[in-house]
Amino acid sequence: MKLATLPNGTEDGELILVSRDLSRAIRVPDIAPSLLVALREWDRTEPLLQARSLALEAGEAIEAFHFDPAQVLAPLPRSPQWLDGSAFLNHGRLMDEAFGNPPLPEVDTIPLVYQGASDDFLGAHAPLATPSEDLFIDCEGEFGVVVGEVPMGCTPGSALRHIRLIVQINDWSLRQPGPFEMKRGFGFLQAKPSTGFAPVAVTPDELGPAWRDGRVHLPLRVEINGERLGEPHGGEMSFHFGQIIAHAARTRKLTSGTILGSGTVSNASRAAGSACIAERRVIEIIDKGSPETGYLRFGDQVRMEARLSDGPLFGAISQTVVQG
Amino acid sequence: MKLATLPNGTEDGELILVSRDLSRAIRVPDIAPSLLVALREWDRTEPLLQARSLALEAGEAIEAFHFDPAQVLAPLPRSPQWLDGSAFLNHGRLMDEAFGNPPLPEVDTIPLVYQGASDDFLGAHAPLATPSEDLFIDCEGEFGVVVGEVPMGCTPGSALRHIRLIVQINDWSLRQPGPFEMKRGFGFLQAKPSTGFAPVAVTPDELGPAWRDGRVHLPLRVEINGERLGEPHGGEMSFHFGQIIAHAARTRKLTSGTILGSGTVSNASRAAGSACIAERRVIEIIDKGSPETGYLRFGDQVRMEARLSDGPLFGAISQTVVQG
Repeated sequence: MKLATLPNGTEDGELILVSRDLSRAIRVPDIAPSLLVALREWDRTEPLLQARSLALEAGEAIEAFHFDPAQVLAPLPRSPQWLDGSAFLNHGRLMDEAFGNPPLPEVDTIPLVYQGASDDFLGAHAPLATPSEDLFIDCEGEFGVVVGEVPMGCTPGSALRHIRLIVQINDWSLRQPGPFEMKRGFGFLQAKPSTGFAPVAVTPDELGPAWRDGRVHLPLRVEINGERLGEPHGGEMSFHFGQIIAHAARTRKLTSGTILGSGTVSNASRAAGSACIAERRVIEIIDKGSPETGYLRFGDQVRMEARLSDGPLFGAISQTVVQG
Repeated sequence: MKLATLPNGTEDGELILVSRDLSRAIRVPDIAPSLLVALREWDRTEPLLQARSLALEAGEAIEAFHFDPAQVLAPLPRSPQWLDGSAFLNHGRLMDEAFGNPPLPEVDTIPLVYQGASDDFLGAHAPLATPSEDLFIDCEGEFGVVVGEVPMGCTPGSALRHIRLIVQINDWSLRQPGPFEMKRGFGFLQAKPSTGFAPVAVTPDELGPAWRDGRVHLPLRVEINGERLGEPHGGEMSFHFGQIIAHAARTRKLTSGTILGSGTVSNASRAAGSACIAERRVIEIIDKGSPETGYLRFGDQVRMEARLSDGPLFGAISQTVVQG
């Protein structure tokens, strides 16, 4: 089942179901007004949505309409929490190697997760508005999960059972303030503007065998202005999503609709390329002595998409950087 | 004008107006269903709420009822963002002195602000549920502001004009995971469970001359099990709230209803005492060589209140720690 959100003047937007091939969609106001409400009442709404989705897939939904990924908001335009991990350790290792930093304490054994803003997510085609190119504008291609309510103290294994949806994310980052904010220990604030999301959120079954071990076993292709930056594979994630959820829920419950991210997808093989410019730059530093690739400029376009072998999955993120 | 929120089964609860002496309250469903909606439509709702508040104060609101601070939720049970500063530099200086740490970079010139969870705030009498006393449970007495929409790039001076309400906060903290989380640079997650709020949020005019220079010029009395921990004065805040807002809004807009905190109120004078146990402990380390005061235990009760010379202001926070 694939779910998306149309603008309707409310904070949470209007929930719609989208066909597997992303060509058609259907409104479901009789089931739930928004995805956030659907998630809160998932035991009731999930079978109703599944049935409606089957009818859409079978061509039996006469009220279906053309799906336009440029029109949708983020699947959850706002969410109770946005907790982003850094679960591909290869990414951090490259950063540390390039800058000669010692590894962060317990980085192999305890997930790194920061709390980001969750009140202003961007749709797949929404521009990123940011004040200056001197902030070193970067994208980060990630996978993420949306959970139902997670009790405090949940274990990694049982945490996986609370995953309702899988999403594809562009975790926009500003690299200039980032290291300074990390050094002060209070986490990222100015370094993290609004986060972007692929057009549809999907239930785990849509991934088939590509969803296993709490990981998305698919490559995520990232392009800047039509040129390949990389297509690292999600299967190399060092911590699985259950571990990230359990880490976040150690001392708090997670409200249903909370989104947890994988951090930049990153692979040990140089052939995979990178899902963010910062990583390509540190590889250039390591391999060639200095960075060659510049950060993003106003007008630059970022495209990200993970697909199944036989068709689309989340749809593509296609965002442009603008001055704002 | 004083505003509070009653539970009504929705995430945002029901907005009520409360009399200046906190004895009586009145429902306002015809003006706004919740404080979050009232803030979003403040130009429309503020004059209507002010008029209703005057009627309540004058004894002309026949539908008024007894106000019970034990029944209310946090004024905003959820909020778009919770951004907590550490704007009393005396607090950080004491911590650094006790542990022999160098000061954080630019700590005197650039505000320190972390992003906390904003989906599960606690009412003034709600218990704090946390899994273990070994997490070193602590309170932090703070002041905070609630803003209307703040544009990206707002200056500190103009930021002050976006302040709609002032609140009193108990920023519950777990000291065991805190230093580890700071050292890894990603900010606080396990160290920060749900945050508590005094019963009512107030418009700045309710403070009279105690609201000036973007600071709350009042002492905040903090008691543990009825014993004074301290009553540090808000006027010693090193950065004012306009500076905290502008820092947070440098690369993002702030949605209306965003809450920004001062961080633990802390004064240079030892006579003021402290607004959190961690600070008392570092003072004991500095003055006596080792800490004497223990962290909170299950069953312990924390009370916090800032009052005007002639009566109550926000009401009191009175929370108990429980195992959860």
